[in-house]
Amino acid sequence: MSSDNGYMKLALEQAELGRGNVSPNPLVGCIIVKDEKVIASGYHKEFGGAHAEVDAINKVNGDLVGCTVYVTLEPCTHHGKTPPCADLLVEKKPDRVVIAMEDPNPIVKGNGVSTLRGNGIEVTVGILEAEAKKLNRVFITNMNKNRPFVTAKFAITMDGFMAQRDHESKWISCEKSRIDVHKIRSEVDAILVGSGTVRQDNPMLNVRLVEGRNPKRVALASHLQLPLNSHLLNDEDSKESTLIYCTNEAQNIKLVDQFRDKGLKVKSISKNSKGKVDSSLVLFDLLKEHQIGHLLLEGGSKLLSEFYELDLIDEIITYQSPKIIGQGLSPFEYISPTKLTLESRFQLDSIEKIDSDVKAIWTRSK
Amino acid sequence: MSSDNGYMKLALEQAELGRGNVSPNPLVGCIIVKDEKVIASGYHKEFGGAHAEVDAINKVNGDLVGCTVYVTLEPCTHHGKTPPCADLLVEKKPDRVVIAMEDPNPIVKGNGVSTLRGNGIEVTVGILEAEAKKLNRVFITNMNKNRPFVTAKFAITMDGFMAQRDHESKWISCEKSRIDVHKIRSEVDAILVGSGTVRQDNPMLNVRLVEGRNPKRVALASHLQLPLNSHLLNDEDSKESTLIYCTNEAQNIKLVDQFRDKGLKVKSISKNSKGKVDSSLVLFDLLKEHQIGHLLLEGGSKLLSEFYELDLIDEIITYQSPKIIGQGLSPFEYISPTKLTLESRFQLDSIEKIDSDVKAIWTRSK
Repeated sequence: MSSDNGYMKLALEQAELGRGNVSPNPLVGCIIVKDEKVIASGYHKEFGGAHAEVDAINKVNGDLVGCTVYVTLEPCTHHGKTPPCADLLVEKKPDRVVIAMEDPNPIVKGNGVSTLRGNGIEVTVGILEAEAKKLNRVFITNMNKNRPFVTAKFAITMDGFMAQRDHESKWISCEKSRIDVHKIRSEVDAILVGSGTVRQDNPMLNVRLVEGRNPKRVALASHLQLPLNSHLLNDEDSKESTLIYCTNEAQNIKLVDQFRDKGLKVKSISKNSKGKVDSSLVLFDLLKEHQIGHLLLEGGSKLLSEFYELDLIDEIITYQSPKIIGQGLSPFEYISPTKLTLESRFQLDSIEKIDSDVKAIWTRSK
Repeated sequence: MSSDNGYMKLALEQAELGRGNVSPNPLVGCIIVKDEKVIASGYHKEFGGAHAEVDAINKVNGDLVGCTVYVTLEPCTHHGKTPPCADLLVEKKPDRVVIAMEDPNPIVKGNGVSTLRGNGIEVTVGILEAEAKKLNRVFITNMNKNRPFVTAKFAITMDGFMAQRDHESKWISCEKSRIDVHKIRSEVDAILVGSGTVRQDNPMLNVRLVEGRNPKRVALASHLQLPLNSHLLNDEDSKESTLIYCTNEAQNIKLVDQFRDKGLKVKSISKNSKGKVDSSLVLFDLLKEHQIGHLLLEGGSKLLSEFYELDLIDEIITYQSPKIIGQGLSPFEYISPTKLTLESRFQLDSIEKIDSDVKAIWTRSK
């Protein structure tokens, strides 16, 4: 069993190589072992490309008799952009297939395992399952909740404020923390902000401080109150990568046309009880229509509070700096006050010292 | 030079062994080396006891000709509770003395080095000086500022609050963090709280969750508004270990007598411009009259804010928990709001994951 763990660890390392290129598909790695030697390895390299099993099997001549195949996710059984991997495995006849976790995709779930077992292949499921689930937390959330995995990120002072009362929020975190944020941006599919952040900070929301691709930019602007000279509306690459959501109220129609005339993508969507764009609908649309599997929430207190109240935050990344300002804006100040006696919805995952700041990652407890 | 570093590291490890027993004296360690072998080691074991050099030299027969002595602090030249170590070294004739840092005590400063050099002993100063200064940050502050070294400690929610608006502050940090606080309490000389904390939390302020000695308990209670049934005034050990500071106003006289009749120690002291006990005078008194070298500030926002405004905080230890409460009491909410553009007075020293909490230690930048 411990050798199973060792080979599965290699398969997980393979899977990790696809990070940043496969979303909203899962990260998958595969290792083929014969006579205690790794004879092939593969991973899912890009969205729509060959699956990890195919990538590994293609490196082996002939069948897989006498082999064990380690794969981080249950082999698929459906004809998607590629033929079913379970069928390919049945054809290649490995002695055994070891799977880290079941596929959460309802059209695959359990079917991959049954297909293999039904064809006389020994199957073990659940080796390094926790690690595999962590690796594919984005994909799992996409499948189970029909929305992007949402990471909220904010910087606070030592005494917990994300901005001065006058909304000044520059100068909180150190340069290395800002570089770290750009690295995170390069790994997500889109960044989301509210119109208040666009008006106050006029952010560029791109990747400048590290090498990497720019994520899409999404703004929630219920009444389209966006400055016409903002980076969001004017940057050279904004036409292609920016998406603005407003309510489908009549008063927006003229503005929508005006924005569209500038070549911008604007979507109007139902409002919620507060007369604002319904965030849940926006998230559903982002995954289904725009393949946004992983969304980074870089909002101010209003957006953070709204997403927290709707229980739409899956992960929080905080940067705490050594500054003390006494009073200011709190990240969740618009939520209904919560009692300390209540269990936390989050748990601490990891910490890192980034120059003068503390970076902490908090994940959903359940 | 690199072997000097190695031996000095051993001397620093010796010094560390005295922690918790020597305050307000410095932690000092000593290593004696001959022919590249350590032939003796020693450290300052308890307040008023033998100095590290004496402890080490006593383990060597005869003189120190051919030896190098490594000591973490400049040898003393004054007759205190023990005779001057510099004289003893001159008598024992080592070839060389290596010193990590100069003694900040104005009656020693530089004199130890001159005495040794004046008697033909080669002296090197400054090996692992930064480490030695960190080790003796308490003693250095005592000497340079004539007050205890002040460590402020507080727990906050992920969104930066140390209590709910109704002052409820239990349930913030995890059990392991509370154990960690008791370990810190066992290493300081006294804990300081304000009367508000006594009224709201009725803390015991002792060491219960770990083995270790109880620190003294100090309360700032300008107008002696302390509940007569509080732990502070009634616990069995409180008579000996508790010290209460009030203002020297006439209205307190009757109450002071009442407290003293109960066997409690009460000191009246000049008030500041706000009519409260002058914290700076209290700190001076704690060091000079009560040998409190290291003080742990466990106050609420008012005390933290006052000490911050007076620049009396040398170190801050924060415990950040995964809870989010939206609104609450901020640790420094009574200071005048500070601009983010200003440099921070603190820098991050170290971080540690304590179960579900982030522990961070922040130290004075300058």
